[in-house]
Amino acid sequence: MLVDQNEKVRTDLWHISPHVLKLETSIIREILKVSSQPGVISFAGGLPAPELFPIDDMAKISQLVLKKHGARSLQYSFSRGINELRELIAQRASERGTPSTIDNILITSGGQQAIELMARVFVSPGDYIMTESPTYVGALQAFNYYQPKYAAIEMDDEGIIIDQVEEKIKKFKPRFIYTVSNFQNPTGITMSMKRRERLVELATRYHIPIVDDNPYGDIRFSGKDVPTLKSIGGDIVIAVRTFSKIITPGLRIGWINGPAEIMHHFEKVKQGTDLHSTTFCQYLIHEYISAGLLEPHIEKIKVDYREKRDTMLKAMKENFPEGVKWTEPDGGLFLWVELPKHMSTRDLLPKAIEKKVAYVYGQPFFPDGSGENTMRLNYSNATRENIVKGIKTLGELFRENM
Amino acid sequence: MLVDQNEKVRTDLWHISPHVLKLETSIIREILKVSSQPGVISFAGGLPAPELFPIDDMAKISQLVLKKHGARSLQYSFSRGINELRELIAQRASERGTPSTIDNILITSGGQQAIELMARVFVSPGDYIMTESPTYVGALQAFNYYQPKYAAIEMDDEGIIIDQVEEKIKKFKPRFIYTVSNFQNPTGITMSMKRRERLVELATRYHIPIVDDNPYGDIRFSGKDVPTLKSIGGDIVIAVRTFSKIITPGLRIGWINGPAEIMHHFEKVKQGTDLHSTTFCQYLIHEYISAGLLEPHIEKIKVDYREKRDTMLKAMKENFPEGVKWTEPDGGLFLWVELPKHMSTRDLLPKAIEKKVAYVYGQPFFPDGSGENTMRLNYSNATRENIVKGIKTLGELFRENM
Repeated sequence: MLVDQNEKVRTDLWHISPHVLKLETSIIREILKVSSQPGVISFAGGLPAPELFPIDDMAKISQLVLKKHGARSLQYSFSRGINELRELIAQRASERGTPSTIDNILITSGGQQAIELMARVFVSPGDYIMTESPTYVGALQAFNYYQPKYAAIEMDDEGIIIDQVEEKIKKFKPRFIYTVSNFQNPTGITMSMKRRERLVELATRYHIPIVDDNPYGDIRFSGKDVPTLKSIGGDIVIAVRTFSKIITPGLRIGWINGPAEIMHHFEKVKQGTDLHSTTFCQYLIHEYISAGLLEPHIEKIKVDYREKRDTMLKAMKENFPEGVKWTEPDGGLFLWVELPKHMSTRDLLPKAIEKKVAYVYGQPFFPDGSGENTMRLNYSNATRENIVKGIKTLGELFRENM
Repeated sequence: MLVDQNEKVRTDLWHISPHVLKLETSIIREILKVSSQPGVISFAGGLPAPELFPIDDMAKISQLVLKKHGARSLQYSFSRGINELRELIAQRASERGTPSTIDNILITSGGQQAIELMARVFVSPGDYIMTESPTYVGALQAFNYYQPKYAAIEMDDEGIIIDQVEEKIKKFKPRFIYTVSNFQNPTGITMSMKRRERLVELATRYHIPIVDDNPYGDIRFSGKDVPTLKSIGGDIVIAVRTFSKIITPGLRIGWINGPAEIMHHFEKVKQGTDLHSTTFCQYLIHEYISAGLLEPHIEKIKVDYREKRDTMLKAMKENFPEGVKWTEPDGGLFLWVELPKHMSTRDLLPKAIEKKVAYVYGQPFFPDGSGENTMRLNYSNATRENIVKGIKTLGELFRENM
């Protein structure tokens, strides 16, 4: 993106590190800019529905925090996070099948920072990271700074194709296995119980940590719940979680739930990075949950997203031509569309924008740059009327270009 | 710190990167933990005075933000920061002698993240960074991840000893020159105008960016103002600023004011790191400043810190034995003490804590680990009564161990 003719000159002038020059700003962010033009129906973002944000509750909670915790809520605090929130998170995890104490928890600035800390602690240039293919594009962006190689594993309806894992572990000795096991970004696919058990077994045998990036796990609105990788695997699994999708992303509070014996490594690199995450927002989250507001809020989100997913799936059935396939997620924010092999979703995007509808093409989600004929659709951030209208337009677009 | 007998085994088991194993959690943070025991008078921290935090104003502003900006203040936002705050910062900088536009500004999670982004963009293992000696220990911690070498320059009462700079630039070709030019942490020293002009001249000639970490610049309470390095040097200077010391640190909002043509490099690495800094706290800061609350608040801080500094200096004069030297800062939060060469402030610390007073010994601030006989004292975070009492105790301690 944004290729600059003078880059060479600038390099010499400013001594930007060579591996930084190679990095790009997120293509998705670029698409988002385009798709935020007035009148464009956007399925491109990964944004939670703003009309569900607990604005009035946050107003009350911010008063409460400042009254109850005063200066403490505005002062420097610990690199691992405020104890109150860490305790609460450990307790919630314990109640949900993952016995945890405060020593397992480190607060991060959103899930993104937690993901980035994984590469920061485990990866040196040339090391391998095992990922799903496709995988979360923001993880690739975070990892790429550290110049890893990727051992990418294909997916099917049950998640990562487990038969490919052992051979690639032996061959590439990856530093960790990165997975978005629930309602994956971008595909919406959830890893089956059988695959989970087998993945934990392999990870344990070869002692390769599984990094389970699980931002959507609480937003299941159909199908049968599957235990988290962490609750199955224990210490071999490092859970990456966030409040972004279940409260609001603008507070930038996420966390790592990992083995107590290695948490000090995350702590010290976090400390060097930004000292600690915002004290005030940590207290906001803590008091929001303590007031019992979280669980009913999650229920509200589930109802809304289920309706939107249903609306989108129905519209797709009615409007997408034969030869187009898609996933039917049981939760989360995204679904995944595959066009016939000869079509390029990248080439189609400008035409879609012309027709006032936006999506993200699939290529950036593939560590090897494949996926030419795929796209990600987000249903959480549009109204139901616009979902129907936008999907109809996409259907026309597909027909015209098949 | 915290040496672990099993570290070797764990390394093999978890594949922590070798350069991460070498890093330590901040010694200062360890000292802070000890000094936060009840009854201990602490000059150890770098904490602003909590009794000055604008708690009531923040309560009002948080209502205003949620009412005025609603869901937008809780949603994902841009990696460079929200436009409103970037505009405001650019305008304030322009009014204060540094012509700036929104394209020069990137919002960070406190000054610490801005410092860390410098190493992240400019430094590969083995590259040199030029620093003052002593320098801000948190910068060393941020830089050390990237395995640099240090070209450390000694200081005197006018700041960095400029005559050593050119030779070391030629010899080591540092990626940037890191300085805390105003009321330095840890020494309280401010770089003289002459030195500033000469440093800018050298930086420009050899095209080495000056990173001017300036968290305390607005808190001058005596002496004559000196123009910032950025206002003298323009694009060759990258200013690192923060609201931590002039509003509150718990919101974690700082910024970079740098050359427009390289800001996209900071943007993309920031994006991979944590997507963006907290939207809500950015709006809080923006509305706080827009309401005209910042300037009177800074005046209040200045009055308080001046009184505390005066109290500390007076007590030192009355209580410290001959042979002890110290700096007399015109602003900021810290002053610097030198004991006779044969004394070790590190060895004295446990005795000081026994006597219920804490400080930070100087060694960690020196890139080469020297400074055995030095210590940093903070005067912003104690009451005047405790300053008198604590300094008296330190005086006794020095006498007993001379």
